[in-house]
Amino acid sequence: MNWIIQSPLDMHLHVRQGDMLQAVLPATTGLFAGAVIMPNLVPPVTDLDMLIAYRDDIMRHTTDPSFQPYMTLFFRDYSAAELEAARPHIIGVKLYPEGVTTNSEHGVRDALAYDKVLDAMQALDIPLLVHGETHGFVMDREREYMSVYDSLARRFPRLCIVMEHISTRDALPLLDRHENLFATVTVHHLLLTLDDLAGGLLQPHLFCKPILKTPADREALQAAVLSGHPKLMFGSDSAPHPVDKKESCGCAAGLFTAPVAIALLAEFFHRHQATDLLQGFLSDHARRIYRLNPPAKKVRIEQTPWRVPERYGTVRPYRAGETVPWKASVSAP
Amino acid sequence: MNWIIQSPLDMHLHVRQGDMLQAVLPATTGLFAGAVIMPNLVPPVTDLDMLIAYRDDIMRHTTDPSFQPYMTLFFRDYSAAELEAARPHIIGVKLYPEGVTTNSEHGVRDALAYDKVLDAMQALDIPLLVHGETHGFVMDREREYMSVYDSLARRFPRLCIVMEHISTRDALPLLDRHENLFATVTVHHLLLTLDDLAGGLLQPHLFCKPILKTPADREALQAAVLSGHPKLMFGSDSAPHPVDKKESCGCAAGLFTAPVAIALLAEFFHRHQATDLLQGFLSDHARRIYRLNPPAKKVRIEQTPWRVPERYGTVRPYRAGETVPWKASVSAP
Repeated sequence: MNWIIQSPLDMHLHVRQGDMLQAVLPATTGLFAGAVIMPNLVPPVTDLDMLIAYRDDIMRHTTDPSFQPYMTLFFRDYSAAELEAARPHIIGVKLYPEGVTTNSEHGVRDALAYDKVLDAMQALDIPLLVHGETHGFVMDREREYMSVYDSLARRFPRLCIVMEHISTRDALPLLDRHENLFATVTVHHLLLTLDDLAGGLLQPHLFCKPILKTPADREALQAAVLSGHPKLMFGSDSAPHPVDKKESCGCAAGLFTAPVAIALLAEFFHRHQATDLLQGFLSDHARRIYRLNPPAKKVRIEQTPWRVPERYGTVRPYRAGETVPWKASVSAP
Repeated sequence: MNWIIQSPLDMHLHVRQGDMLQAVLPATTGLFAGAVIMPNLVPPVTDLDMLIAYRDDIMRHTTDPSFQPYMTLFFRDYSAAELEAARPHIIGVKLYPEGVTTNSEHGVRDALAYDKVLDAMQALDIPLLVHGETHGFVMDREREYMSVYDSLARRFPRLCIVMEHISTRDALPLLDRHENLFATVTVHHLLLTLDDLAGGLLQPHLFCKPILKTPADREALQAAVLSGHPKLMFGSDSAPHPVDKKESCGCAAGLFTAPVAIALLAEFFHRHQATDLLQGFLSDHARRIYRLNPPAKKVRIEQTPWRVPERYGTVRPYRAGETVPWKASVSAP
């Protein structure tokens, strides 16, 4: 069995900088037609010059011309003029509440206190991408943030708002309540629960933010994705860290899933007799929501055992060294 | 400020074997008058010869004559004759559901299927100590086990049953429902939540079974302990592992709290104006419940900064290298 996905997109990706960028980027550019590049560098990407320099850096390491990085600015008190100047270069602005994840120290305390910025983004039709977590109890953080999404969506009804990497069932009803709310879903929140992280021995390589949730949350996400929900897009949140930052006292949050994401999604959709819905989740929904016209790229998905490499530079990918039953590869045009 | 605790007892302790035993035992024997020694060795302590050999091994490494190890057998299908022979040497039998924690591979699938053993234990007045967790979702395992405790307590009304290291608020109402149910509480479940393990960076040294729970669970445990609840006993569940088994891919469960437990309990009880209740929690409740007469040992608790050692052999203790505000030490008799 095999089939073709046209121009798969990763709508939430961390590629870092320097040696790390070089080591991890090919895993994405080799299989995806485009990816939304997150701006939580050190320091964060908070002006157009930095953004263009970062994009150029990514392009320099991209050997594949059929790959488009969709750049994002790190949310701050931008002026309307700054946003207008940035607009042709960005797909959106990414909002982090202060301190909720890797390199988010410069995030905002209260999203709703930035009316002017949000007004300008709405007027300029610039999407708002949000890491939606409070500072509450770790298993409740995303659920607690739903009221913020609700307020944002109501107060800025023409602002396109993307709930990034949703992991709790409470996020799903909001998609139906607000026309302007959308969401990305990772492969790990679709497949794993807190049991995988901490139910047996503790598995630091499965530690991420938002934290893996309950079986009921995972089931709700699975059902929504398998219903072909048109407001759900794939976003890997692939977030590489060197092995020594994962297997240590104080392990950084993130799974490096970019190399295996398509293969694992293929397995998941095939198991649920839903292979026809993968094109939408992996590409078409995002194209429609963001009005994108990504580079043409045919990715062949085959039921062929494939061994996941042990390392990409200093990074251990999800399922490292394991053989997975499906393989994704670029098909000749 | 300082005060004296008479003969503190640790009613749930792992001291392991060999070099590890040698490295960790002094932290307990130096401050406690006695401790309940858990039998989950490799292989588990499942007959009287092994138990006596293990006790002798512990005594050989105990330089302090005012320390009493209270030995336990690992639950299996013992005959009444075996239990009768073991009775003078044990404080109870420890039941592990299969595979729920370190070295529990030989545990039982269904506690209630062992009527004969439980009948014999009841007849012989041998307490049953239980690691009460199901194989469900990690945050629900203890709560789901409550129905087993309920059945055990009803079907064996004269069997003394100890719910070990309770971590969820659901355990507390059972203490009032059944005269024959008791519980131990660790210092880490009293002070920490899942946020400490996984709310910021992942902290493998705080990974344990049962897993750290919610703020509501912690508050309920704190309130019960601070009420002087007579059925709650201190049991550290101090469970040392070498540093390389903690800071790795697949981290073993357990905190090594033995060296700091009394100091941290003193801080906690003092902060809550309940210093007068510490004697009960640390000794008197256990003495009454188990009808013990431990060696005389006066432990002085002083408000004196004390730096926790970085290592005990290959083991990193809880709060390693930190200075804590209270210090416990043996007082001249």
